[in-house]
Amino acid sequence: MEPTTPQEACFEAGIKFGTLYHQFAGTPVSPASAASLETAMEAAIENQPFCESVTVDVREEELAAELDGRSADYTELTGRFMEVEMRIDYEGSTVRTSMSMEGDYPRMRVEEVVE
Amino acid sequence: MEPTTPQEACFEAGIKFGTLYHQFAGTPVSPASAASLETAMEAAIENQPFCESVTVDVREEELAAELDGRSADYTELTGRFMEVEMRIDYEGSTVRTSMSMEGDYPRMRVEEVVE
Amino acid sequence: MEPTTPQEACFEAGIKFGTLYHQFAGTPVSPASAASLETAMEAAIENQPFCESVTVDVREEELAAELDGRSADYTELTGRFMEVEMRIDYEGSTVRTSMSMEGDYPRMRVEEVVE
Amino acid sequence: MEPTTPQEACFEAGIKFGTLYHQFAGTPVSPASAASLETAMEAAIENQPFCESVTVDVREEELAAELDGRSADYTELTGRFMEVEMRIDYEGSTVRTSMSMEGDYPRMRVEEVVE
Repeated sequence: MEPTTPQEACFEAGIKFGTLYHQFAGTPVSPASAASLETAMEAAIENQPFCESVTVDVREEELAAELDGRSADYTELTGRFMEVEMRIDYEGSTVRTSMSMEGDYPRMRVEEVVE
Repeated sequence: MEPTTPQEACFEAGIKFGTLYHQFAGTPVSPASAASLETAMEAAIENQPFCESVTVDVREEELAAELDGRSADYTELTGRFMEVEMRIDYEGSTVRTSMSMEGDYPRMRVEEVVE
Repeated sequence: MEPTTPQEACFEAGIKFGTLYHQFAGTPVSPASAASLETAMEAAIENQPFCESVTVDVREEELAAELDGRSADYTELTGRFMEVEMRIDYEGSTVRTSMSMEGDYPRMRVEEVVE
Repeated sequence: MEPTTPQEACFEAGIKFGTLYHQFAGTPVSPASAASLETAMEAAIENQPFCESVTVDVREEELAAELDGRSADYTELTGRFMEVEMRIDYEGSTVRTSMSMEGDYPRMRVEEVVE
């Protein structure tokens, strides 16, 4: 069958999450540069169609813990270091999504669909 | 409301498309290296959960046209140079998706949802 | 022969340019989000070893010209839309480098080496 | 001072390393997809100017060790999982470079400069 509008809204939400993660994973990041990266990630993804709001939290305490005892004072951005919330509005359907760690895996979830 | 299984399947499909596009956009590519990039993109994305099959066509004739008259003999991969089909199987729902150019925009679409 | 210190400084400078370009190429960007991306790119690359300063100019007028008449109101970051200057200090050698368009190609250059 | 030819050759070598690392870091990878990724990375970077040869070894045993006991059967490519050798020929200067782990840091090195 052809997709429904809420299904298309969920597809659009997924695109934004894959974009956010794989565009920015690998970026050199430190506690000092975390805030500017959050802001840029939010603004970049909000450019995409149907993306109403993006909130990125680069987890600075987790970064600091990772760097403690390491030879470098920065690391590469990966899922362990970020929490994300996003809202997609697509032709009248609203989708709320999030990403956070579930054990050792950065889980992306659809929290709510409002048709 | 909580998402339905087909809605979650569409979200998963979107994640894979965002991943594929933004992981590989910018890769140096030429007609000679296109085939190896297609194979690697397919195998990389098929690693992701629920991703049953990925077919990537790097459009070599479009690449050749782009390079004609340019100073370099390679360019950067972008949506204009690829067509993609993908099938997601998620808890009994199957989603077929595709990407191809629609005018000047690389459009990602849900073609069919089978519950 | 083993590399000299100034040669290693130039190698380090090149690493930073390849990083900056290929980490951020493909990022969704618009005139409105350009400033936050500049700031994040500078801070990210300055995390890397021996990188004393990075200045990124996302060319907003060039972005606006690209978007005029297009179906979307954002595009993907690529070399045409940025100018970069960078200074590397490596064990007493200073290297000044830049990137800007040379015809249709984003040329990265070593401007000066001070031993 | 203006850079010498061997210094420019080292700069070119650095660009290729930064490109290789930050274009492909974050790619979903498993022991089964490692070989296709190696091939595509080599062919992509060899497109760049002055890049005579690239050899990428995705360390499959290290990947397998990482995945042992994890919830997913793939991970993201990062420096810990690859060893790279590269040769740059630039206007008569040849530069041999490599990347491998040095403790917890993926070290990129100029091995030899032949003027």
